[in-house]
Amino acid sequence: METLLLNGEDVDANAEIGAVIDAVERAFTAYERGDVQMPAKSYIELPQYNGDFRSMPAYVETDAWDAAGVKWVNVHPDNPEEYDLPTVMGTLIYSDPETAYPRSVMDGTELTMKRTGAAAAVATDQLAVEDATSLGLVGAGVQSYTQLNAIAEVRPIEEVVVADQDAERVADFVDAFEDRFDVRGGSISEAGHCDVLSTVTPVREPIVGVDDLGERTHVNAIGADAAGKHEIEDAVLTGAKLVIDDHEQCTHSGEINVPWSEGVLGEGDIHAELGAIVAGNAEGRTAVDGRTVFDSTGLAIQDVAAAHVVYENARENGDGYPFEMVNLD
Amino acid sequence: METLLLNGEDVDANAEIGAVIDAVERAFTAYERGDVQMPAKSYIELPQYNGDFRSMPAYVETDAWDAAGVKWVNVHPDNPEEYDLPTVMGTLIYSDPETAYPRSVMDGTELTMKRTGAAAAVATDQLAVEDATSLGLVGAGVQSYTQLNAIAEVRPIEEVVVADQDAERVADFVDAFEDRFDVRGGSISEAGHCDVLSTVTPVREPIVGVDDLGERTHVNAIGADAAGKHEIEDAVLTGAKLVIDDHEQCTHSGEINVPWSEGVLGEGDIHAELGAIVAGNAEGRTAVDGRTVFDSTGLAIQDVAAAHVVYENARENGDGYPFEMVNLD
Repeated sequence: METLLLNGEDVDANAEIGAVIDAVERAFTAYERGDVQMPAKSYIELPQYNGDFRSMPAYVETDAWDAAGVKWVNVHPDNPEEYDLPTVMGTLIYSDPETAYPRSVMDGTELTMKRTGAAAAVATDQLAVEDATSLGLVGAGVQSYTQLNAIAEVRPIEEVVVADQDAERVADFVDAFEDRFDVRGGSISEAGHCDVLSTVTPVREPIVGVDDLGERTHVNAIGADAAGKHEIEDAVLTGAKLVIDDHEQCTHSGEINVPWSEGVLGEGDIHAELGAIVAGNAEGRTAVDGRTVFDSTGLAIQDVAAAHVVYENARENGDGYPFEMVNLD
Repeated sequence: METLLLNGEDVDANAEIGAVIDAVERAFTAYERGDVQMPAKSYIELPQYNGDFRSMPAYVETDAWDAAGVKWVNVHPDNPEEYDLPTVMGTLIYSDPETAYPRSVMDGTELTMKRTGAAAAVATDQLAVEDATSLGLVGAGVQSYTQLNAIAEVRPIEEVVVADQDAERVADFVDAFEDRFDVRGGSISEAGHCDVLSTVTPVREPIVGVDDLGERTHVNAIGADAAGKHEIEDAVLTGAKLVIDDHEQCTHSGEINVPWSEGVLGEGDIHAELGAIVAGNAEGRTAVDGRTVFDSTGLAIQDVAAAHVVYENARENGDGYPFEMVNLD
């Protein structure tokens, strides 16, 4: 019996995005039904290194499969400059729930991007206008790539506008996608007047205002992942149909955390959790809706759902390195 | 840059017990000083599989080194019978605190035994009589082996008495150690009249009473790891100098959890945490002390301390399999 080791390339190759979106949607449904276990993230704060670690364990039971694991992930903003390492790295242990045998240890960095893109796709499918064909992106970093790949699975995206202060990053993004899409750099307002907008920046002062958005744009607010961060002006959030991934995480560290803590935004402003919509217990977009916003913080159940897909595909494809981690007598 | 993969044999070979004892003692000292971060264990309960998972993250800063990681460990009691797998397995991700790079992924099963033996050795060093030469063991399972190996590092053990209902396990234990010690099977009372006793059973009804113990025996109570478990009769605990590893864990799931929850044993019965003794803030054994008891539940800081030793030794010895887990550009 062996543990399958999957590095970032293996995860990328086996995280078939349509299957990951399906798995993540099933995980949100399971969450709504109470068929998951997801203890709160545990934080280890290391101010002496300007960094932190988070431990994210979860179990998900869907109609088709169940999955358990823990992701260990960090945020060390000085890494790129000082150590030529990514700000965020992650490692995930994926276990058989029935016996707890460690089926796989996989790179969690690539996995995080895939499951984050997948959650945005699930939300977009429920909240964007049916005939959406244009996608705006604010921020042209690594997350923007998976946002486009994932959202293009649920709407026939043709036109893409990417806004970033770094012209080189914009050019790289255009290069990467010009074969598949009508893609160009543009302003935040141009991006925000697309049918769908994903914001993937780490800002602490909002950069997307009401006037930057179309009347019926759906916004995936991805960037905020810590108290104090927000990308979208309060007036957008309070005026939109607002959907969150998890009440505790969003009010603590999601897009809504700042207006929530200031009392600008309250319980009555939140329409539903995404799980309630995919499970059929709350409405997605209706004919009368204008703007919609999905506040994505990223849940441990998304990680184990995506890991399930990666592990099953990798086994089928013969990818990864089998390692006898547990020595049985 | 690579992540060093260490299986159970690699961990065993590189967990040099003297170094692990030293590292675990430093971790307890750091704990007392407030130089650790150890969020509460997170539990995932899977009654449908009669099992659970625990996530144990920690950071330790000592004068000599610091270390961070998470252990993901389970308890699935049906595993041996139904799947020919161990009840408990574990996997640990060991990270560089400064950059969060995953330095190693290692088998946590073997590691758990080593760090548990090491904690008993640290406690024995502080609490057993100085001239202790005999060790009793109640329970001849896997943990009993590391108890003997570790405790023999801190006291010149010559005579060993092992008590277990399973004669084959006793014979195996005697076989394993008869070259090094005067070792024999015996009753619980014979084991308990040694200078030091370690109890390593999963019982829920106490099996060690006052009459089973010598007047100045030091007892390491290792077996209890869940609410409802206890090995030692209440009268022993209330009459002894009682030392614990961690207040929250011991009152919830350690040897004292049952009498604590019943109100038989209270705050006044606890002498100190082990960290307070090794840091010099509380006394260990004094000339007037009779019996002493150490309630060991096992802390995440012990795991990362032991992992530090294993990783450094394995690197020096060229052991393990280097794997490019994180793909850097």
